[in-house]
Amino acid sequence: MTHEGLTALEVLGVAIKSEIDAAALYQRMAGHVSNPTLVAKLDFLRQEEEKHRLMLEELYAVRFPDVDLQLPAKSHVPTVDDSAVEGLTAPELFQLAMKAEQLAASFYAEQAEHSRDEMSRVVLRYLSNVERGHYHMLETEYELLSRFPSYYNADEFHVGDALMHVGP
Amino acid sequence: MTHEGLTALEVLGVAIKSEIDAAALYQRMAGHVSNPTLVAKLDFLRQEEEKHRLMLEELYAVRFPDVDLQLPAKSHVPTVDDSAVEGLTAPELFQLAMKAEQLAASFYAEQAEHSRDEMSRVVLRYLSNVERGHYHMLETEYELLSRFPSYYNADEFHVGDALMHVGP
Repeated sequence: MTHEGLTALEVLGVAIKSEIDAAALYQRMAGHVSNPTLVAKLDFLRQEEEKHRLMLEELYAVRFPDVDLQLPAKSHVPTVDDSAVEGLTAPELFQLAMKAEQLAASFYAEQAEHSRDEMSRVVLRYLSNVERGHYHMLETEYELLSRFPSYYNADEFHVGDALMHVGP
Repeated sequence: MTHEGLTALEVLGVAIKSEIDAAALYQRMAGHVSNPTLVAKLDFLRQEEEKHRLMLEELYAVRFPDVDLQLPAKSHVPTVDDSAVEGLTAPELFQLAMKAEQLAASFYAEQAEHSRDEMSRVVLRYLSNVERGHYHMLETEYELLSRFPSYYNADEFHVGDALMHVGP
């Protein structure tokens, strides 16, 4: 999906749709892991995306008070189709979410550059930074769960259990 | 505070004390802001530090099952003295927390390098990455609240209100 030549109005539509899809992805991911630490992280990420949606909707209302918001059919978040997600392992879901956060961060940074009003620039840059932070958070967890495959399914991460997987 | 030449046992003591202090700092910070989005982020950070403490205590119990845990008087978290914190503004508290996260990330990275057992290396590297993520999260919020000083005190961040502070 190319974002070149999007109008300011279209940018906000794509952004809002993406935040909706991202929140849905985190909700699904939280249903796929049982470790409460990971569930808390995924719930936090979902809540952040929900707040971004509200922030963007408000920006839309301020900038285009007379135009009804129309969401595009597709966001830049990779597929969150229920059946596709169902077959994925936890590490695969993390990779999917990482890809989505990377795309979102790039999209916001790029659109902030092209934005003509200062308010949009500030909000889009902020969102770009937050999504990049999400990417790194996911990456850190992904590394641990690649190392200890039982991490996300365990009731809790136990150093003692994990010891069995590594050398002394 | 220098960390050179700490024993593996001392490293864990310093780390646990720092996580306790970091959690206390976030609890105090949450009491200083009223914006629910920021409060949610600070609560999340506090919970993360509490989980790190448990992870480190478990690592301690596995590595030193026969030695009672003794915490040092000081952590590497900058002062979280109640009276000192009381007089600080929200941006100053964020700077304090950013400094603490930076020190924690460096400390864990450095100690992971020096650690002789693989399990400690994995846990310390993981904690270093998570704390670096916290630093970036705080930095992103700090940038927004530097730009919109009313952000942390508002009931919510409103794009419309923020518009008053920037040009068209």
